[in-house]
Amino acid sequence: MKINGQPFHTIWVKKEDPSVVQVIDQRVLPFDFQIFDVRTREDAFFAIRSMVVRGAPLIGVTAAYGMYLSLLQYKGHKQLLYAKETAEYLKTSRPTAVNLAFAVDGFVKAIEGKNQKEALAAGLEFADKLKRTEIDFSSRIGDFGFPLIRDIYAHKKSTVHILTHCNAGWLACVDWGTATAPIYKAHRTGIPVHVWVDETRPRNQGARLTAFELGEEGIPHTVITDNTGGHLMQHGRVDLVLVGSDRTTVTGDVANKTGTYLKALAAHDNHIPFYAALPSSSIDWHMEDGVKEIPVEERDPREVSHIEGWDQSRIVEIRLIPAKSKAANYAFDVTPARFVTGLITERGLCKANKNSILTLFPENK
Amino acid sequence: MKINGQPFHTIWVKKEDPSVVQVIDQRVLPFDFQIFDVRTREDAFFAIRSMVVRGAPLIGVTAAYGMYLSLLQYKGHKQLLYAKETAEYLKTSRPTAVNLAFAVDGFVKAIEGKNQKEALAAGLEFADKLKRTEIDFSSRIGDFGFPLIRDIYAHKKSTVHILTHCNAGWLACVDWGTATAPIYKAHRTGIPVHVWVDETRPRNQGARLTAFELGEEGIPHTVITDNTGGHLMQHGRVDLVLVGSDRTTVTGDVANKTGTYLKALAAHDNHIPFYAALPSSSIDWHMEDGVKEIPVEERDPREVSHIEGWDQSRIVEIRLIPAKSKAANYAFDVTPARFVTGLITERGLCKANKNSILTLFPENK
Repeated sequence: MKINGQPFHTIWVKKEDPSVVQVIDQRVLPFDFQIFDVRTREDAFFAIRSMVVRGAPLIGVTAAYGMYLSLLQYKGHKQLLYAKETAEYLKTSRPTAVNLAFAVDGFVKAIEGKNQKEALAAGLEFADKLKRTEIDFSSRIGDFGFPLIRDIYAHKKSTVHILTHCNAGWLACVDWGTATAPIYKAHRTGIPVHVWVDETRPRNQGARLTAFELGEEGIPHTVITDNTGGHLMQHGRVDLVLVGSDRTTVTGDVANKTGTYLKALAAHDNHIPFYAALPSSSIDWHMEDGVKEIPVEERDPREVSHIEGWDQSRIVEIRLIPAKSKAANYAFDVTPARFVTGLITERGLCKANKNSILTLFPENK
Repeated sequence: MKINGQPFHTIWVKKEDPSVVQVIDQRVLPFDFQIFDVRTREDAFFAIRSMVVRGAPLIGVTAAYGMYLSLLQYKGHKQLLYAKETAEYLKTSRPTAVNLAFAVDGFVKAIEGKNQKEALAAGLEFADKLKRTEIDFSSRIGDFGFPLIRDIYAHKKSTVHILTHCNAGWLACVDWGTATAPIYKAHRTGIPVHVWVDETRPRNQGARLTAFELGEEGIPHTVITDNTGGHLMQHGRVDLVLVGSDRTTVTGDVANKTGTYLKALAAHDNHIPFYAALPSSSIDWHMEDGVKEIPVEERDPREVSHIEGWDQSRIVEIRLIPAKSKAANYAFDVTPARFVTGLITERGLCKANKNSILTLFPENK
């Protein structure tokens, strides 16, 4: 997708030096635009942990390239053991993201039984392929989700209002995004869309990233506080809710950025369709009860007690609460399947239940 | 209640100069502590509009004193007409607050048919009495709400966790608060309580004011983002939700700070009691359908696109969204009565329905 009119991916191997992987530094968006170099597994860990990159698909691709870079630098004779160790290390950078485990374990499998040269080639091919797959999956999610918007427009004959929470946009993926992919496809088809962008405290991925990428693509949008969606839904000003998912159980429970559950409740109460868009790499085929089983990352309270923004010429962090008060930061929540109208995957739409999900992905039965 | 160990009200007539009414300037809390002087009706309008004072009960009392001050300065011979004009003027400062209309209309009635000297005395007495009444009502709300906490404690025998949204604390009233009054009463009785404080974007009244006043009273509390309550409720970490109300219909629909509705939905989904605490002055006896009828104030989008906080030594405002993006700011939402377990009023508890409310307030039948 575009930034300042130029086409971009979120991650790429540096052309001039293939021992460097470059990513858009999402910590400084939308106030600044910087490229971050990943050279080591520690860089990859840092990039994931510190949210230089974020979003389940992009985290997976970054981890795969991180595996590759660590192998590229490894000089010993136990490369498989080293790769397995790196895999475990990278898994600890963001515990909730299932794509991360999928990527690093897949990488280990791809190099198994190969000599150093073969392993490097296979490892790079694995990472490149994962990247291509994520782009392809996002594009398909867009194609499969597009009819939801088209049909609302056909019925309504005026601007389709879509609410989204957090950033499940192309910045969270490699291109297109998940929740945003149907929006971009609809926009390119000429359907008038408008997006209500939840700011998504504490890290404001909506206000910072979703608003940025929609703006750069020329999509009309309005930033609102996370508190506002219910009111808008009560007054018929939201036609569709589209969110991403960091982890989805095989039963259709959706783990996503904290606050998603509240929007799902409001959508349900106001009979508004609520869809989660996700590549099947985000589905956990072994989990049945998301609320009980999905571990929810507790992050630094400072993300709640403080906030970052733009002070005329620089990014500053300011304190929001009394110096003596405590804060807590639960980064995700789980929306039970009963509030999810459906899932949009790279293979098509399905209901948020085990039978419907496994019908689309029968190999996981 | 206490600030830095000293007992305070939010508003008082200045002892040294009874032509000045003083209020705590809530715009700079919790980072600074300043007193704001109200001398004219324009000052009162400004104080209400700019949220030097906020909260339905305090707005009412401020408006009443503003009426008094304007009368004190009036030199003409049409004092009743002037007072009526002032009443209409002050009503426009915050359209959602019904207490405001109640206060200024009551003031006009109190001075009707009186000469200038009598009117001044009656006006001051009206404002003083409204202040005393608000303190008394808050204290009663505390007494009537207290058993809810006591009973949870009796059953649970460990810390009672209460979630609150916005600031319906003593800073929103004159003393005790509404939603916080039962908490203060429970705390003073020795029941262990802990409050989850929603930060309450966009103006962060929770993070700034509720956290501040709870801290000054020594009540354990934790600030969370507005997105977090659902997750906490799903995991059994909230025993009770207590909020205030800016306006309540006779049918029990509760208008309160935007986002309240989302918390009510989550409380309902998790079988957690959800109570709104309010003086009956907040009840609109003529409204039957809150979602349809209560006008929701749309405030300056800058409150969403920007945020205020503490930057080491001063309050600064920083931008949160891309320079090119729009924001919208709907300040309230309406929680339909079906999600409200009950109302806590100065006359006791009632269900959130017309029959139960009118049983408690039969004079409004």
